[in-house]
Amino acid sequence: MPELRKDPIIGRWVIISTERGKRPSSFSSVTKSVSHRLCPFCPGQEENTPPEILAYRKEGTEPNKPGWTLRVFANKYPALMVEGSLTREPHGLYDKMNGIGAHEVIVETNNHARDMVDMSEGEVRNVFWAYRERMMDLERDTRFQYIVVFKNHGEAAGASLEHSHSQLIATPIIPKRVVEEIQGAKKYFEFKERCVYCDIVRQELKDKERMVMDYDSFISIQPFAPRFPFETWLLPKTHQSSYLEMSESDFTVLARSFKDTLGRLKLALNDPPFNYALHTRPISKDHSEYYHWHFEIIPKLTKVAGFEWGSGFYINPTTPEEAAAFLREIDPFNDAKAAKPVTVEEKV
Amino acid sequence: MPELRKDPIIGRWVIISTERGKRPSSFSSVTKSVSHRLCPFCPGQEENTPPEILAYRKEGTEPNKPGWTLRVFANKYPALMVEGSLTREPHGLYDKMNGIGAHEVIVETNNHARDMVDMSEGEVRNVFWAYRERMMDLERDTRFQYIVVFKNHGEAAGASLEHSHSQLIATPIIPKRVVEEIQGAKKYFEFKERCVYCDIVRQELKDKERMVMDYDSFISIQPFAPRFPFETWLLPKTHQSSYLEMSESDFTVLARSFKDTLGRLKLALNDPPFNYALHTRPISKDHSEYYHWHFEIIPKLTKVAGFEWGSGFYINPTTPEEAAAFLREIDPFNDAKAAKPVTVEEKV
Repeated sequence: MPELRKDPIIGRWVIISTERGKRPSSFSSVTKSVSHRLCPFCPGQEENTPPEILAYRKEGTEPNKPGWTLRVFANKYPALMVEGSLTREPHGLYDKMNGIGAHEVIVETNNHARDMVDMSEGEVRNVFWAYRERMMDLERDTRFQYIVVFKNHGEAAGASLEHSHSQLIATPIIPKRVVEEIQGAKKYFEFKERCVYCDIVRQELKDKERMVMDYDSFISIQPFAPRFPFETWLLPKTHQSSYLEMSESDFTVLARSFKDTLGRLKLALNDPPFNYALHTRPISKDHSEYYHWHFEIIPKLTKVAGFEWGSGFYINPTTPEEAAAFLREIDPFNDAKAAKPVTVEEKV
Repeated sequence: MPELRKDPIIGRWVIISTERGKRPSSFSSVTKSVSHRLCPFCPGQEENTPPEILAYRKEGTEPNKPGWTLRVFANKYPALMVEGSLTREPHGLYDKMNGIGAHEVIVETNNHARDMVDMSEGEVRNVFWAYRERMMDLERDTRFQYIVVFKNHGEAAGASLEHSHSQLIATPIIPKRVVEEIQGAKKYFEFKERCVYCDIVRQELKDKERMVMDYDSFISIQPFAPRFPFETWLLPKTHQSSYLEMSESDFTVLARSFKDTLGRLKLALNDPPFNYALHTRPISKDHSEYYHWHFEIIPKLTKVAGFEWGSGFYINPTTPEEAAAFLREIDPFNDAKAAKPVTVEEKV
């Protein structure tokens, strides 16, 4: 059983998950390719995954057989375990909790060779719709307080299988980063009586210099204080605290906005490894006045080093204005303008 | 001039430092070797670095010429600039500050081929003594609030030159991570009237299961809730809020403790890339009752992925108890017990 442990100083919880199989002697600096000859996420390999929890499939096809276009199942190496009841206990001055949660994989397409940018708008819409369906189902489980939906693309971003997939982890606590966003947004709201994210949307629509894409109900921007080069946020223009408040028709708009934004990043940066995560309200209905859901997309271009780990202070070598201008010039639905990546020396 | 920008939601400052030369088109996924034929940190290459600020050298040798054993100079590609006065200004709803600070490089040895573990105790002591000298000098500059001392070892940990060196960055704000530690330690102190770090030292000395090394005035431990496998903290056993409170004689003890701890990690994990950072009190004398200086050492063994970036919640596949037991078995001053690293598959 995995364990949740709390840092006694800053209150950060971590998941100690030995089920994921790293023993002290099993680390090495050698990395391996993510491609596999027999990809367990491909059609025909369904018996190599846990049974499906949700699938979008052709009528008349059987569960856990080919015929699907999207498939969700439990992670074979879950960071948290779904069975059991939550118990918290002390350990001297420390706190721990058993590692209850859900950890699921969303295989986004039956085509091993296509990533989100190559998928049709309808297929991408289905991915976002599947997030919604799984979140609505998991929110009924009273042991959970939050659901983290995320994607790792490329080996350097932590993906160990290249077949396009996302993951979600339902957690029995509200993660530290979300708590910080809520506290910050609440403080701003108490002072201004406005949502800070709505104010950001307003300012970015006016300033334009950090704008990447503006399409119907969504914008994507380079945030004013990005930790990383080309860090990109995608936000709904109007106030919604939870992803689950999005209208059905907006799922199509979101799919197009996402394909557009990811397409620009892919062309600008030569298909970079990246992570994205959905930032949405905790399961409880609190915080809905001032929290505002959004996606944060982080291309993996630089290394996080001692300064950053030690201080929580980030050095970013690219201004968001420059990155945004560069991304705006790209036509995401036409490769012709693909930027030529150039190798440069990293500085000390 | 670099710029400091503040995230309007969680209050995290970042350094936007275009002086470090990454333009949008200059990123690529290609990594390069850190070794250089003409290492600018080697004796005889002094003209390829900024002039020295501090050096430990043979009597009678000239500044910026060979004859030194340790050398400190400004970073050629500084993240912050030392000249100018601090100005804060708004930018719509955002806040920014000009990027004033000091960014220095400490070349730890004149021998290109030796890392900290290979150096003599006296040489390592000199490195820690140089930190002290530079910190005491920079603390007199009223524009600075904090000094981050850190080391990147190995390319994957962000080192771009392999010649053993540390860095320090003096910042005009207190970094987020330090603020969090101070707030957490203060809260604990208000409740218990004891320093949380002192309580941790006490519990670890008693429990023993997370202990890595116990030598005179220092211990190194695996923290109870580590973000990363083999994350290691080295703390003074008695209460000291600032690194600068350490007695002269303890510098020798620290050098041996550090060599011991790094030696264990090197042998256990096959010379892993790692980062360490000194966590010490801000320059102002506040917080001295409940803050407790220490080093945090982070071997770079796993990848930080979407879940972690999105949530601030970490998945660690190794228990600290298991890691500590493994490190305790190693004799850091004798290679014979070096562990054989084994490659394993990463999980999805």
